[in-house]
Amino acid sequence: VEEPSFNRLAILGLGLIGGSFALAAREHGLAKDIVAFDPNLETIAEASVLGIIEQGFSSALDAVYEADAVILAAPVRAILRLLPEVAPQLSEGVFVMDLGSTKRAIVAAMNELPEHVRAVGGHPMAGKEVAGFAAAEPTLFMGATFALCPTARTDGRARELAETVANALGARPLWTEAEAHDEAVARISHLPYLMAAALAHAAAPEGLSRSLASTGYRDTSRLAMSEPTMMLDILMTNPAPLRAALAQASEALAILDAFLEAGDESGLRAWMESAQQRR
Amino acid sequence: VEEPSFNRLAILGLGLIGGSFALAAREHGLAKDIVAFDPNLETIAEASVLGIIEQGFSSALDAVYEADAVILAAPVRAILRLLPEVAPQLSEGVFVMDLGSTKRAIVAAMNELPEHVRAVGGHPMAGKEVAGFAAAEPTLFMGATFALCPTARTDGRARELAETVANALGARPLWTEAEAHDEAVARISHLPYLMAAALAHAAAPEGLSRSLASTGYRDTSRLAMSEPTMMLDILMTNPAPLRAALAQASEALAILDAFLEAGDESGLRAWMESAQQRR
Repeated sequence: VEEPSFNRLAILGLGLIGGSFALAAREHGLAKDIVAFDPNLETIAEASVLGIIEQGFSSALDAVYEADAVILAAPVRAILRLLPEVAPQLSEGVFVMDLGSTKRAIVAAMNELPEHVRAVGGHPMAGKEVAGFAAAEPTLFMGATFALCPTARTDGRARELAETVANALGARPLWTEAEAHDEAVARISHLPYLMAAALAHAAAPEGLSRSLASTGYRDTSRLAMSEPTMMLDILMTNPAPLRAALAQASEALAILDAFLEAGDESGLRAWMESAQQRR
Repeated sequence: VEEPSFNRLAILGLGLIGGSFALAAREHGLAKDIVAFDPNLETIAEASVLGIIEQGFSSALDAVYEADAVILAAPVRAILRLLPEVAPQLSEGVFVMDLGSTKRAIVAAMNELPEHVRAVGGHPMAGKEVAGFAAAEPTLFMGATFALCPTARTDGRARELAETVANALGARPLWTEAEAHDEAVARISHLPYLMAAALAHAAAPEGLSRSLASTGYRDTSRLAMSEPTMMLDILMTNPAPLRAALAQASEALAILDAFLEAGDESGLRAWMESAQQRR
């Protein structure tokens, strides 16, 4: 058994992601003690009863007291509110990392943390459409890429600790600047959600089409069930890269429609083969 | 053991769908003898060696000789070519059904078959992105909806036989007019493919975005791997309903983009919640 990396790990937010982080941290002995803040008192009580946390807090400020590691696991804009709120209570040399879906705004907020704080922006590429603590599982991050973004508060020790955390969860750490991260996830992670949601809007299964719906529709539209609050924060904190990705998708559909209108077989075939190749 | 419904079942096309049909028909004793046509001689040889068919033919005309049931399992426009080709050889009272993905053009072609023929348009709502006989499996249609479209050659006995075939495969027969079928599948079956392909075009994973790609992208873009020849026939035989479905999806994306541009939170939330509900 390895020595725990942290004495007191504070997790702010025990939803799907924070709950899964807590379960994995417990399982892999990442910290001697794990404490947590969540606005939902029932969640706090449940995590305590299950022995996943040593102590629960209804105040984030209280939760980070004397912690040597703080993990922020909440929708992006909740993280942006929590950072300045807990800042006055952060210990000397504490390791702070978030697990939010966009990174530019969060890294900018982390740059404003006190100078005695170590901070790294984090984003494990894992999730499900089912939100909340009840859906949490310790293996959620297993095998996933874990994006890590440096901030003005990232020193060598912070880098080391961030990689230790990612590895402890069974994920693969990958360093990237926040801007490059946000541009990439707009295309590869958030655009799939938007396409799935647009499909649900357009297909609107009812009557006959509902009877004829098959695995193709179900898989392609699955992400439309993603939690709106989490997605809203993503859309509001990454609009420019998202609009660029949307424009490319809309252009692809417009080109397709022109081929259909013209009955252009070779154009259609090339369009389909190119999609197959890019996939 | 029930009496076989047919003496000699001829399957025209032994790809994923025709091969799966042959396997299921064999397993459920649907016919005394099963024979097949396929342009690929290796497929014919393989199906013979495996004991799935009694006899293989390189000519569709030869294959239907003395058959009391003919199943056309090919891309839509191949079916449209096969129907008049085999028509002169069709026996008195033979049951003819296709398994093509669009039905309007095929039902119109079936209406031109000789009057002594029974014909029904069929479409089992099952498939995979992997094409070909090697991917065939006897359980492919299990639990799937099996759309059945009446033609000018559909009498009471034809209806009975079509339902018998669907039930024998473990599928649920559902009668619908060809026009309604094509409109519904444009939205619920073919639009998902087009959205998946447009996503592949726009996301074009490479470098960082490839490393960050997760199950969300994989599931939402899965259909982009569908067989282009099959999809091309679908697009070319169902352009108007497809363009209508595409227009609705494009409009949904345009509305979304306007909300993003305006930073309209309540608009974005309503758009996402409506997608969730429709899904």
